[in-house]
Amino acid sequence: MSRPPYVSFLVRSSRPDGRIGAAEVVDSVLRELGLGRLPAGSRLPPVRVLEQELGLSKNTVQAAYDELVARGALESREREGVFVAGARGESALPPPVPAPAMLALRPAPGLPPSTPRGLLPLSMVFIDPALLPREKLEECTRSVLRSPGVASLYEAQGYLPLRQAVAARLAARGMAVDASHVIITTGSQQAIDLVARATATPRVAVETPVYSHARLLFESLGLGLTGLPLDPFAGLDLEAWEALLTRDRPGFLYAITSYQNPTGYSYSTHELVRLCELSARLGFALVEDDWGSDMLSMGGYRPTLRQIGGEPVLYINSFTKKLLPSLRVGFLVAPPALVPTLVAFKRLSTLGNPWLTEAIVAEFLERGYYDAHLTSLHHELDARYALCLAALREILPSSVRHTTPGGGPTLWLEIPREVDLAQLQRSVISRGVHIELSAGHFQGPAHLHGFRIGYAYLAPDALRRALHRLAEALAEQGVR
Amino acid sequence: MSRPPYVSFLVRSSRPDGRIGAAEVVDSVLRELGLGRLPAGSRLPPVRVLEQELGLSKNTVQAAYDELVARGALESREREGVFVAGARGESALPPPVPAPAMLALRPAPGLPPSTPRGLLPLSMVFIDPALLPREKLEECTRSVLRSPGVASLYEAQGYLPLRQAVAARLAARGMAVDASHVIITTGSQQAIDLVARATATPRVAVETPVYSHARLLFESLGLGLTGLPLDPFAGLDLEAWEALLTRDRPGFLYAITSYQNPTGYSYSTHELVRLCELSARLGFALVEDDWGSDMLSMGGYRPTLRQIGGEPVLYINSFTKKLLPSLRVGFLVAPPALVPTLVAFKRLSTLGNPWLTEAIVAEFLERGYYDAHLTSLHHELDARYALCLAALREILPSSVRHTTPGGGPTLWLEIPREVDLAQLQRSVISRGVHIELSAGHFQGPAHLHGFRIGYAYLAPDALRRALHRLAEALAEQGVR
Repeated sequence: MSRPPYVSFLVRSSRPDGRIGAAEVVDSVLRELGLGRLPAGSRLPPVRVLEQELGLSKNTVQAAYDELVARGALESREREGVFVAGARGESALPPPVPAPAMLALRPAPGLPPSTPRGLLPLSMVFIDPALLPREKLEECTRSVLRSPGVASLYEAQGYLPLRQAVAARLAARGMAVDASHVIITTGSQQAIDLVARATATPRVAVETPVYSHARLLFESLGLGLTGLPLDPFAGLDLEAWEALLTRDRPGFLYAITSYQNPTGYSYSTHELVRLCELSARLGFALVEDDWGSDMLSMGGYRPTLRQIGGEPVLYINSFTKKLLPSLRVGFLVAPPALVPTLVAFKRLSTLGNPWLTEAIVAEFLERGYYDAHLTSLHHELDARYALCLAALREILPSSVRHTTPGGGPTLWLEIPREVDLAQLQRSVISRGVHIELSAGHFQGPAHLHGFRIGYAYLAPDALRRALHRLAEALAEQGVR
Repeated sequence: MSRPPYVSFLVRSSRPDGRIGAAEVVDSVLRELGLGRLPAGSRLPPVRVLEQELGLSKNTVQAAYDELVARGALESREREGVFVAGARGESALPPPVPAPAMLALRPAPGLPPSTPRGLLPLSMVFIDPALLPREKLEECTRSVLRSPGVASLYEAQGYLPLRQAVAARLAARGMAVDASHVIITTGSQQAIDLVARATATPRVAVETPVYSHARLLFESLGLGLTGLPLDPFAGLDLEAWEALLTRDRPGFLYAITSYQNPTGYSYSTHELVRLCELSARLGFALVEDDWGSDMLSMGGYRPTLRQIGGEPVLYINSFTKKLLPSLRVGFLVAPPALVPTLVAFKRLSTLGNPWLTEAIVAEFLERGYYDAHLTSLHHELDARYALCLAALREILPSSVRHTTPGGGPTLWLEIPREVDLAQLQRSVISRGVHIELSAGHFQGPAHLHGFRIGYAYLAPDALRRALHRLAEALAEQGVR
């Protein structure tokens, strides 16, 4: 890469057929020089570049450059190339220009900062990587490479065998889904993004507290939000929800019906039925995010909104947390009539997603590895959950309440109102522990007073250590 | 998966400490039954689900269910589970509900339809898969799996070694870029999406004709568009551009400066300098899409906007076309001050992209395979380009003009105005050839009259065959 750059210029033809020969090259260079567009000392394109570009013989371009050198317009330098005459400067580049304008950006969305290094992450939503099937995924990758080999093109809707495997899994859970209704996405985040980009309505209803990346996404796309208060200790106040939905008339409700993030709440079957009835009556669509059910033992036997409401319900799920976060494979199931438009919006967003990771997950599902993995993962998560419940009872004061999601990676810890949460956070940080405060989770005022505890990422010993630190920090504020 | 689903319900505690025992389970079921929320025949959660969820002993939950059976509220069925008494229906699910409302979508963006099967794709923008380094990529995949193994987490900004390798390549081309300024994206499409999502300004300027997926993306995000006419046979009319930019005051200009899609035009160095000056003077930012330069022999030695305008210029490139489209790896280089906000918008879009494909491309770059691949790819593309130019001269009438991009995969064919392009398309389709008409490429009226020809996807024989069919169809309309 030691050759200097060259300036490019347009070779124009004044012939009626548009063809170009040596005369057109000479005329074009002289015209550019006359207009001051080729500064002295600039390097011109090498002969073979022009010859290739214009489809000319080498002799033709060389003849044009020779003519220009003979006229004193250009000069040839041994082993360096052809330059505009009149300067022997070091740089062949044009002179510097004033700094162009800087792109003006919107304010950054208020995402929670990541956990500072060196602290025990007590609010982590991920699962301990030691519990994830890395070796089996590597085996599937090798298999995908062997046969039929790496595909050169991608499919905008997603790799067909993966869509088929997803549809078969959902059908086995009582959801009549065809592969043509499945859109593969980059995790569940892109699935939510597609729905939000494609919707024709200006308002969305969300639970509050809500998965903060969904709330911020909706806001960033200009959607108005109606927050529906969710109290995981009391269940849904459906009369209050109905009043809010009637008042605001959102286009759709985005709901995490199983293992709600961040509370760990799972909707009762009766609540799902009532939401379907409200959807029909008030005319808002249902978008169900079911990230949680397959982290729960027997979670697959609990009805989903999609199961009760059928085809009109949009259904989102992801392999991210359970398989390997770095794979970033999720999916969206949509009513058949909506699929082409949603795929078109996916093309605008990413065109299509990497074929390889889609093929690896398809292979993993086809081999039956996913069910085997979930069985052993449930065993581990159930054990960590049970240890966490025991540790909470043993270590924390009884005035601190918690939800009972039944497994999975996290639960919600509800702290007595008199505790200053920001001070609590500073206090646990000084003890080497990080908790994620949940201001970003609330749409409107916060009716809960606490934060998420992750017991699936930390080894049980580390979790107990972190909870002891939390108990010390609570005692500091008089809660024992 | 033969077990029937179960209905879920919330077990509430009326005790001050929130704790739950058998009495709370009994009370909760009776309350739900009294409220009509558990239909007759519904299956209740298995004992071990409730025991796990609530952190109770098996005996406690069993005792609660026994009590409810004894009171006649529930009934136990051998090997099936516990059900709400009073019905022996087949289904344990709640009764069907009226169909929920359907999500209302915006009109689908008017993307060009894909080439019908069985036709020779004469407008294809991709490169013949036979020219792409599949085996070397498979080798890199195996190496990535061996050491250090598959990562469990992803990085929102993109895999650091890939960002480092990208920065090193750009630095070698005269662009001072640090890895911390690089954001890895799903192809160049996501890079454009991030800029469009994050911009604070309501208007963008684009070339016309323009890469249609960029135009439709901007429109779908509500940005107003200013079309700057590009005539690839005459170069930019910068006075006209300045007038339009002054009139409309867009926030940024999105420009494909090298090998413009769909025309194949490359900006002259003088034009790049003038755009930087206009940017500084009129206050619009520059977003450069440089997808084309590394498909051209010596293209890397031609200055880019980023090189002339420096750090404020946003720079987009991608490995998609040249390496393997199915990998979907591209990148955006941004001024340091803008990187955190752009990464935050990437998190809202996809959180992060698959680690594996990022690691494979990083390995490919680190081994020096990319430069070796480009060298042999240029050789092939140059040969196909030369054959295409020769075929155009030999087969098509001289009134059909074409651009001279100098290599790469496509050029623009300009057809005499008297030809009806829609009729031409129908006529070539009847001859087994597909051309993509370019209505979607224009912002405002079309000042060009033609379409893109792809010579890198079709083998030379197939290209000649397709051009002969095109010549026949032109002759049908009197152009010989």
